[in-house]
Amino acid sequence: MAEVESVRRCLRVFSLEARELSITESLPYLNGPQNPLQFYREWICPNRPCIIRNAFNHWPALEKWTFSYLRQVVGSREVSVAVTPNGYADAVYGDRFVMPEERQMTFSSFLDIVEKKVTRPGVFYVQKQCSNLTEEFSQLIDDVEPDIPWMTEALGKKPDAVNFWLGESAAVTSMHKDHYENLYCVISGEKHFLLHPPSDRPFIPYELYTPATYSVSEDGSFQVVDDQAAEQVPWIPLDPLKPDLQRYPSYAQLKPLRCTLKAGEMLYLPSLWFHHVQQSHGCIAVNYWYDMDFDIKYSYFQLLESLSKAVGHL
Amino acid sequence: MAEVESVRRCLRVFSLEARELSITESLPYLNGPQNPLQFYREWICPNRPCIIRNAFNHWPALEKWTFSYLRQVVGSREVSVAVTPNGYADAVYGDRFVMPEERQMTFSSFLDIVEKKVTRPGVFYVQKQCSNLTEEFSQLIDDVEPDIPWMTEALGKKPDAVNFWLGESAAVTSMHKDHYENLYCVISGEKHFLLHPPSDRPFIPYELYTPATYSVSEDGSFQVVDDQAAEQVPWIPLDPLKPDLQRYPSYAQLKPLRCTLKAGEMLYLPSLWFHHVQQSHGCIAVNYWYDMDFDIKYSYFQLLESLSKAVGHL
Repeated sequence: MAEVESVRRCLRVFSLEARELSITESLPYLNGPQNPLQFYREWICPNRPCIIRNAFNHWPALEKWTFSYLRQVVGSREVSVAVTPNGYADAVYGDRFVMPEERQMTFSSFLDIVEKKVTRPGVFYVQKQCSNLTEEFSQLIDDVEPDIPWMTEALGKKPDAVNFWLGESAAVTSMHKDHYENLYCVISGEKHFLLHPPSDRPFIPYELYTPATYSVSEDGSFQVVDDQAAEQVPWIPLDPLKPDLQRYPSYAQLKPLRCTLKAGEMLYLPSLWFHHVQQSHGCIAVNYWYDMDFDIKYSYFQLLESLSKAVGHL
Repeated sequence: MAEVESVRRCLRVFSLEARELSITESLPYLNGPQNPLQFYREWICPNRPCIIRNAFNHWPALEKWTFSYLRQVVGSREVSVAVTPNGYADAVYGDRFVMPEERQMTFSSFLDIVEKKVTRPGVFYVQKQCSNLTEEFSQLIDDVEPDIPWMTEALGKKPDAVNFWLGESAAVTSMHKDHYENLYCVISGEKHFLLHPPSDRPFIPYELYTPATYSVSEDGSFQVVDDQAAEQVPWIPLDPLKPDLQRYPSYAQLKPLRCTLKAGEMLYLPSLWFHHVQQSHGCIAVNYWYDMDFDIKYSYFQLLESLSKAVGHL
């Protein structure tokens, strides 16, 4: 037991030292398009987030993307909209990991809901992360860019996906991490991010859940329908906005980083960073997902995962 | 105990997976001066070694640095020479960590020994790692370069030290690691490297030793003189050429990488890689030490160190 306790201590010391070494209390701001090598060396390689201002001032989207313009250009397109009863898509609900109903509707019908011209049960969010900007909204790509040139040069590859996000204020992205280097650009409104570095992993609880999907009945009520024959999904049960510290006391040792990303600002969210996201009503954003490198840092993170499972919560 | 065993398993799996993910059986060869960004992304950031050919063909040293030229240009200079009875400077001997006698002599006297014009007890090695090329052999710097321009651009800084190495074939550098990104260039002869990635740390034994220094008596015999009031030094007791597997059985699970670096070749030896070095008699080399970045990879390595101490040998 003394050895296990000393392993736990190693993990606690690591998490603290990793923060002290490379993470500031609040996110640093950079200005303008970045030098690829310098950005790679100072932010991507050390896996540090930052906010970049004036990085996409030249995008027509910043001026053009009003709701009426979007109705005009892509209003008639059928798009995928995530619908949930409570705003939580891909999140733990009770003893299930519940995914949203993926509803097909015209973009105009979706905007009617966001603009409160009509009322429908549930919370609606265009958030399909399958490069929906290039797939579903291809008419809009010239208002932004198909990639961020200096990031493409830094990483030596094009983005895997360019996603378009537009949703209601009640729509929340529950805490999770992605295998991507992420450049997140707010076009209008505000996004609120709550972040944890990968080195916080030992303090962040994961549990296994049966996957399920929301389904809306004709009377407007939401059912939770279990996926057939699907494997259990590991997910984070903890809501960082109101963490259950009775159940997950070790989370109390962590200090999340918070930031609000305003229109015209770009967040560099490094791979494997945990993030929880909220937004102002009708916020429009575009993000670029570049595949991460599965290198020694990834192996180290895998070690952290397996150790966290081996010794339980700290 | 089950938990400790599972921590040991995590470390074994990590070490294996880290190798599979990013390390090839033998070192890859690159050709010519490198693109700074690409080299940073593909080798420095993922902490992977490689050998670069034709990277310093333009150095006059390759043609000029014969022993007679060196006698002519720096023969009268007083230089620091490491002298040991057995070729092992900075290595474990019995229950001591023994450093070499640092003898001041003219470079000509040293060359007399290397060229076997005179006989002296012990093994002689010019290996002083205090930027001795710029400090002790400044007349030679124009025959090489004060830095490697593409590496300086990649790292955004000049080297901390440029070292000159010339020694007898019996001189061995015992296994250790450095906090530097290292570019090692052989001018003449051959260097034989035996390498382990940092991810092998849990399998590599460390013990604490009382520091001592060799001292040659007038009769030519070597004494081991304990340093006064010095703290114990952690060092690797294992000789990878003839490992004591009875005592350190876990080392048998490791496969070292070996390479021979020939005249005109440059080794990129990443920070924190364990290395053991031998050489052909009279081999001349120059290396560039660039300070490493103490970033998240360093924090992860510190975790690995502390875990290795916490759970003992695997």
